[in-house]
Amino acid sequence: MSKKAVLIVSGGMDSVTLAHYFHAKRYDLTLLSFDYGQRHVKELQFAKACADRLGGIHKIVDLHSVTALLPGSSLTDSSVEVPEGHYAAESMKVTVVPNRNAIMLAIAWAHAVAIGAEAVAFGAHAGDHFIYPDCRPEFFNAISNAFRKGNEGFGNPNLKLYAPFIDFTKAQVADLGREMGVHFEETWSCYNGREKHCGKCGTCVERKEAFALAGIVDPTEYEE
Amino acid sequence: MSKKAVLIVSGGMDSVTLAHYFHAKRYDLTLLSFDYGQRHVKELQFAKACADRLGGIHKIVDLHSVTALLPGSSLTDSSVEVPEGHYAAESMKVTVVPNRNAIMLAIAWAHAVAIGAEAVAFGAHAGDHFIYPDCRPEFFNAISNAFRKGNEGFGNPNLKLYAPFIDFTKAQVADLGREMGVHFEETWSCYNGREKHCGKCGTCVERKEAFALAGIVDPTEYEE
Repeated sequence: MSKKAVLIVSGGMDSVTLAHYFHAKRYDLTLLSFDYGQRHVKELQFAKACADRLGGIHKIVDLHSVTALLPGSSLTDSSVEVPEGHYAAESMKVTVVPNRNAIMLAIAWAHAVAIGAEAVAFGAHAGDHFIYPDCRPEFFNAISNAFRKGNEGFGNPNLKLYAPFIDFTKAQVADLGREMGVHFEETWSCYNGREKHCGKCGTCVERKEAFALAGIVDPTEYEE
Repeated sequence: MSKKAVLIVSGGMDSVTLAHYFHAKRYDLTLLSFDYGQRHVKELQFAKACADRLGGIHKIVDLHSVTALLPGSSLTDSSVEVPEGHYAAESMKVTVVPNRNAIMLAIAWAHAVAIGAEAVAFGAHAGDHFIYPDCRPEFFNAISNAFRKGNEGFGNPNLKLYAPFIDFTKAQVADLGREMGVHFEETWSCYNGREKHCGKCGTCVERKEAFALAGIVDPTEYEE
């Protein structure tokens, strides 16, 4: 019998690599994308393209109603400017959406219980730790424990939470992605919502750096 | 300065009593109700009435998009029949919505971080433990730990999760509600979505029993 995995896939290079990783492990994939009113939907199209390429299911969860409760993050509140500079800088704190991974993982886990999946996974990596507390291993272990306790007796007894890149640098994720045949030109990182990647926001800077460090020719079209 | 609490309030007798309890402790209240396509919306009207009476804010979070991921529960899937009989019976398992409390609490916690609240609370009580693993103290402690870790450095440093009734029987909750002046006729328990409480489903049976054990005249209009 086939085993199922529910993956949180934004359409960025980490989560698209994650999908290829679980595909290579022969899981049937459901890719969940969350539309919380981010400044662009290009990443959602790339998540769908990834699902299509890997023969998986793509579902979009509409969280606009939750976003309405969360003013103050530059990712969800258009009155707050997206900061430029290095991803790991203090100024990036304005990009934090409170409890975001807990919300997305809770929904993914619920779907996994409902369909009898054996895996829930997300693509957090070590570079996320500094700014985002909900990308750290401590959080990952704690939430995994909570979900197991909160669903005791329901769903597939083998269901586990995975974050296989949690100790990887983004360059290591890129390297793995290359190995797995990821189409990096069909991934989106930029926090701004324009036609091309801006090249200046935290995730653009981090994206460029990852390709450079991994020795991959960066296929991204930047604004300059 | 006033302190804020974010409460999960369905409009049932437990959560309405919870709101009165935090009101008595002089918190400014935000009552969050979740519209996940339950069979009726009467409970949402009662949640709003409760917020109005206590001078609090009422917000409804639309989770239909999440519900679409969760077939198989009688509370969200109209093709599954609502069981009759005692609330604590094995047959009530069909009323479980996977990971429901994790999802609602994660959203409540996010809102609490965003507004600087000191408390997030929900009205789980001991009678819920048998059927619903996400109403047990073990879950409550684990998810609380996860949220603290996942939001380290953000929100009010005093923010805590409360489930003050977690060791109460429902009769004890009713007794406290009476003491606090809860208008029980403006609370809703029935899992069915009809004009009056059906009187036969698990939560109706439990509601009747709680009033009887607490020696409170049951103000509910049942179908028979």
